[in-house]
Amino acid sequence: MKTMQAPAASSKIVLVMLLLALGLAGAAADSSRRRLVSSSSDEPCKQMTLYLHDILYNGVNNTANATAAPATKPTDLSTSHWSNGTFFGMLVVFDDLVTEGTALPVGDEEPAARAQGFYFYDKKESYNAWFTFSLVFDSKAYKGTLNLMGADLMDDETRDLSVVGGTGDFFMARGIATIRTDATEGYFYFRLKMDIKLYECYV
Amino acid sequence: MKTMQAPAASSKIVLVMLLLALGLAGAAADSSRRRLVSSSSDEPCKQMTLYLHDILYNGVNNTANATAAPATKPTDLSTSHWSNGTFFGMLVVFDDLVTEGTALPVGDEEPAARAQGFYFYDKKESYNAWFTFSLVFDSKAYKGTLNLMGADLMDDETRDLSVVGGTGDFFMARGIATIRTDATEGYFYFRLKMDIKLYECYV
Amino acid sequence: MKTMQAPAASSKIVLVMLLLALGLAGAAADSSRRRLVSSSSDEPCKQMTLYLHDILYNGVNNTANATAAPATKPTDLSTSHWSNGTFFGMLVVFDDLVTEGTALPVGDEEPAARAQGFYFYDKKESYNAWFTFSLVFDSKAYKGTLNLMGADLMDDETRDLSVVGGTGDFFMARGIATIRTDATEGYFYFRLKMDIKLYECYV
Repeated sequence: MKTMQAPAASSKIVLVMLLLALGLAGAAADSSRRRLVSSSSDEPCKQMTLYLHDILYNGVNNTANATAAPATKPTDLSTSHWSNGTFFGMLVVFDDLVTEGTALPVGDEEPAARAQGFYFYDKKESYNAWFTFSLVFDSKAYKGTLNLMGADLMDDETRDLSVVGGTGDFFMARGIATIRTDATEGYFYFRLKMDIKLYECYV
Repeated sequence: MKTMQAPAASSKIVLVMLLLALGLAGAAADSSRRRLVSSSSDEPCKQMTLYLHDILYNGVNNTANATAAPATKPTDLSTSHWSNGTFFGMLVVFDDLVTEGTALPVGDEEPAARAQGFYFYDKKESYNAWFTFSLVFDSKAYKGTLNLMGADLMDDETRDLSVVGGTGDFFMARGIATIRTDATEGYFYFRLKMDIKLYECYV
Repeated sequence: MKTMQAPAASSKIVLVMLLLALGLAGAAADSSRRRLVSSSSDEPCKQMTLYLHDILYNGVNNTANATAAPATKPTDLSTSHWSNGTFFGMLVVFDDLVTEGTALPVGDEEPAARAQGFYFYDKKESYNAWFTFSLVFDSKAYKGTLNLMGADLMDDETRDLSVVGGTGDFFMARGIATIRTDATEGYFYFRLKMDIKLYECYV
């Protein structure tokens, strides 16, 4: 037995109808968060665009700026196909800056969030990665985290990660983060544009 | 206050009933995906069986075939109990072939999917592992990913991983993957049978 | 179009009302698990408190007791800010004991669960970590797993991890685990108090 959640003209209308139908309209007065689930893939309950800046430690002179460093070396499989290797097996731990615009924060400016987690390269024949991290928000706009994971299929212009959970202002969230490589500078900097759409929220 | 989702004879019946009840039957005409949640643990909204082939790099002569390689060595805890060690702390990155039958693809044959992620061994006293990976589908049948994680309790004949998210054709999926070691060849090959059942789908 | 799940005085009342409304009251007789979702953030469908004990291998003389060991060393970024370093990039694999009270199990006493997974340190300026692991239950009370992930923001007194999935007795669970450092002994032992609240259950 399966159940399809009721589609409706708007969540408020459904809510009111259900409250009336169940004779429980008074319940809407309590102050806790209430579950809100999108019944359709084209209407997220929350949406935002953020930029992730990964500044990789170059092993020489960027310790002050670097936000990411390799915790493991590429394996021998990495060089079996390409002369320079594809970093197969290199795992990078990061505490990256996340911003609303494309620019890095200047001076005292606070980032929109930090991205804390890791990625590793996982293909012999080409660059391809896998990510898992938390977006950690501690700003006027938001306090809380979003937890993400998924394949970063670098041959594709855009690729989708899963938002598998959230805390604080993003209590119990689920959704999709569509990422796109927005800029790169050699081996030691890349910027990802992240279009995040949540389909399960508590509001 | 908790809400139980309505059980019903079939999802289509419920959908129609709810649409009629809410006077919104016209909404069914739009082309986006709609959320479908199983109300019962014995009726998944989608089901499939796949085989994962892990060919571990042996450090010598199988770079052409290998799809996995250790990114870290076993720790000293690995050898504290068993003479040969239990690989405690060895983390293996993989880009494994996934097939519908038990055989590896031959010639130009496309795999059903790739499994990209890692596992590591995490027990002193015996072999025991932990997995997280994406099933990456790029075939005629499916485009998209499923994201999995969980304990691979190798002492048990079958063990359950969580499907915590999905993208593309598996948009927002959740479910369970029951895995079973289907074949092994020494240290450098194993095949997992994966029975995947999804209980949250968008269709 | 979005759908809000119906709030109600109690899940049983809603279930009965919906069953009656849909003319399917007989369906309640089957033996499989049924989905139960909390509509409100202050009423979890399940709740428990557990303690996680991490005994880190000290490289010398605690192989018998140790349940965790570093699989990677801190990166060079670790020492750029603090003289002793912040372990940036050190990844620790663990198979930790989990108990209902604060004490470690004595003699033949069974732990409430094992916690199998890893954490790594990910900040240059201070101690900060990221966790992912499975709580593996194999006791009289429970059989099954809960899968968790999230940022361990060590500057905060409490921090929330996401419970992103579950198996067995925790089939398809989702929720929040609020953790707090309950005790530490030097570098090689810490105990986390975990308040786990599930908001999606199958019962």
